[in-house]
Amino acid sequence: MTLTVSVLGATGSIGRSTADLLDQHRDRFRVGAVAGGRDAAALARVAIDLRAQFAALADPAGGPALKEALAGTGIASGAGPSAVIEAATREADLVVAAVSGAAGLAPTHAAIRLGRTVALANKESLVCAGAAFMRDAARSGARILPMDSEHSALAQAIGAGRIEDVTRMTITASGGPFRTAPRERIAAATAAEAAAHPTWSMGMKINIDSATMMNKGLELIEAHHLFSVEPERLDVVVHPQSIIHALVTWRDGAVTAELYLPDMRVPIVHCLGLGERLSIARGRPLDLAATGSLTFEKPDEERFPCLRIAKAAMAAGGAQPTVMNAANEIAVAAFIAGRIGFYDIAALVERACEHHAPRFPDAPADVDEALAIDAEVRTWSQAALAA
Amino acid sequence: MTLTVSVLGATGSIGRSTADLLDQHRDRFRVGAVAGGRDAAALARVAIDLRAQFAALADPAGGPALKEALAGTGIASGAGPSAVIEAATREADLVVAAVSGAAGLAPTHAAIRLGRTVALANKESLVCAGAAFMRDAARSGARILPMDSEHSALAQAIGAGRIEDVTRMTITASGGPFRTAPRERIAAATAAEAAAHPTWSMGMKINIDSATMMNKGLELIEAHHLFSVEPERLDVVVHPQSIIHALVTWRDGAVTAELYLPDMRVPIVHCLGLGERLSIARGRPLDLAATGSLTFEKPDEERFPCLRIAKAAMAAGGAQPTVMNAANEIAVAAFIAGRIGFYDIAALVERACEHHAPRFPDAPADVDEALAIDAEVRTWSQAALAA
Repeated sequence: MTLTVSVLGATGSIGRSTADLLDQHRDRFRVGAVAGGRDAAALARVAIDLRAQFAALADPAGGPALKEALAGTGIASGAGPSAVIEAATREADLVVAAVSGAAGLAPTHAAIRLGRTVALANKESLVCAGAAFMRDAARSGARILPMDSEHSALAQAIGAGRIEDVTRMTITASGGPFRTAPRERIAAATAAEAAAHPTWSMGMKINIDSATMMNKGLELIEAHHLFSVEPERLDVVVHPQSIIHALVTWRDGAVTAELYLPDMRVPIVHCLGLGERLSIARGRPLDLAATGSLTFEKPDEERFPCLRIAKAAMAAGGAQPTVMNAANEIAVAAFIAGRIGFYDIAALVERACEHHAPRFPDAPADVDEALAIDAEVRTWSQAALAA
Repeated sequence: MTLTVSVLGATGSIGRSTADLLDQHRDRFRVGAVAGGRDAAALARVAIDLRAQFAALADPAGGPALKEALAGTGIASGAGPSAVIEAATREADLVVAAVSGAAGLAPTHAAIRLGRTVALANKESLVCAGAAFMRDAARSGARILPMDSEHSALAQAIGAGRIEDVTRMTITASGGPFRTAPRERIAAATAAEAAAHPTWSMGMKINIDSATMMNKGLELIEAHHLFSVEPERLDVVVHPQSIIHALVTWRDGAVTAELYLPDMRVPIVHCLGLGERLSIARGRPLDLAATGSLTFEKPDEERFPCLRIAKAAMAAGGAQPTVMNAANEIAVAAFIAGRIGFYDIAALVERACEHHAPRFPDAPADVDEALAIDAEVRTWSQAALAA
């Protein structure tokens, strides 16, 4: 049986890996819609390569270029937010939601509301509006398959037992480029230094989040929603080799761990298989004897305060994660631009959380409310930086 | 619902750990029969502690002492091989088969023939007569739950997916006391040095098997039968910390590993739970950050030839594993008695395998045939040592 897969964020890093895998398993998959952000030429190439039925560009200005690039291919196209929503809601057996940032919320949510099976790589959906997403998925019957490496690993490990027997879920952190650096050294870090990720090749924003360990905080919040697990049963262990991605501890003390060499295609293909394991051409097999050693450390929340702040936001609940995520995006952009220092990221995020706690006591009731909070906190954060 | 559990080998190390767990979960379990080898007083104590219905001693001479020790308790008893078979075949929801050595074959097989669920800690059943055991279990509908640490870990990890998606199963080895020793040093080892196991506390015979790595060879053969996995998909990695017990590699390159601190109660309670995870009082939680480092090495079949010999016996099939196991028992006993050196164990086992290959080309058709081969090879091995 051929499955129809749509890919939102098809020109990004996850999207390209997904395309590679869809191409390896052409007998199994047909591609419905692909959606991209601004690069009409890149999107057209993916659409043609994958023989997609429909291509949507988020940027309305790119519509004519996309149409021209697709002329004669028989691939329909559209541009602007409504075209992306159309891509998300076309009939599909699986929707890969790999748009990055807050822009991913609306199309991901549209697919979930229709009860689609959604492979979720957009962290912000759960961080900004986790309660609303999970509630609406339960209502529509949508399945959410985690595509983040750590969450895929958790889901795989949980598959070895019953969720009610899980007493702890642990995700691993590489520790980032400053894992062993003293605080004074980290305080003086430039964006280029912070973006040099030791084990994963990712985008700039996520690399900075990895350096501050905010990335792990966001992942804890995701896990909290995805697996309905209480904050106090979630934790992070630093594991510089990034080979174990997550561990599940059972009631009897046994621990199931999920391992693979850092390669996003592993969690992606796990989603594409819908419960079946598909092969990966040109995959790298894990050889533990060749690896030699896997090491583990407690994370240091003194040198990496963003992890502490994110845990506090998760425990506080309400709109705190939404606020935190918005302030963090602004702070990271300012750090990349050289406007603030490394520890100013955590300082701004913490101020934003404190300032907005009384203003937004409750979790956003829906995606629109989450986006409204997000917008207000971004404005506040810009102003705070300018002050 | 209360489950009835019988424990064969109740006075041994596995039996005592099982008794500890049954005692912790008294609301859940009722004890049917307990069976022991020669120690009537110890067996009576276990029977009374667990409020068993029936106690069987393998040694017929101990019958009167057992009867006297149980006088007034209402616990019935018997002695001799037929009493042990009675213990194995009484009505029970779970039979823990933890008799060690060839003595375990007959009672374990009797329970399997009746279609019981059997928690298998007797390696010899599968090493000596694996094909017959698995065939008879399939016929009777008996479930075999592995209670060996590595096989329990494999079973738990396989639970995270579908067996047909498994491409490799790996068990770990501590490496034993001679892991880092040069060959000349190992060649001069005494039984006391060989029995000093770094991470597990076990009996003398199994400690020597661990030092020669024959133990891992036996475990590979067990896994081959338990999981119907081809020899070339099975391997061993040395992992001195004994925290990861087994790993399963999936078609997509992901690896599911099962971890816990060395404590036999973890695999035992996994069997007792029949798919549900039960708690373990006074269990030690795994703390990877405190552990610090997990290391891995390729096993060295030059310094540990028993592993090479066992792999060859597994690949050759037929009665080679039966022959190998019998010769190994005699050789290890001679080494413990100081009659032969460390590398003479491997030499005798290899000679026995070569000598008996033409005599016993086929796998034993049943347990009786396995025991007959076992007896003949023991006699041959004793004679070879005396020559």
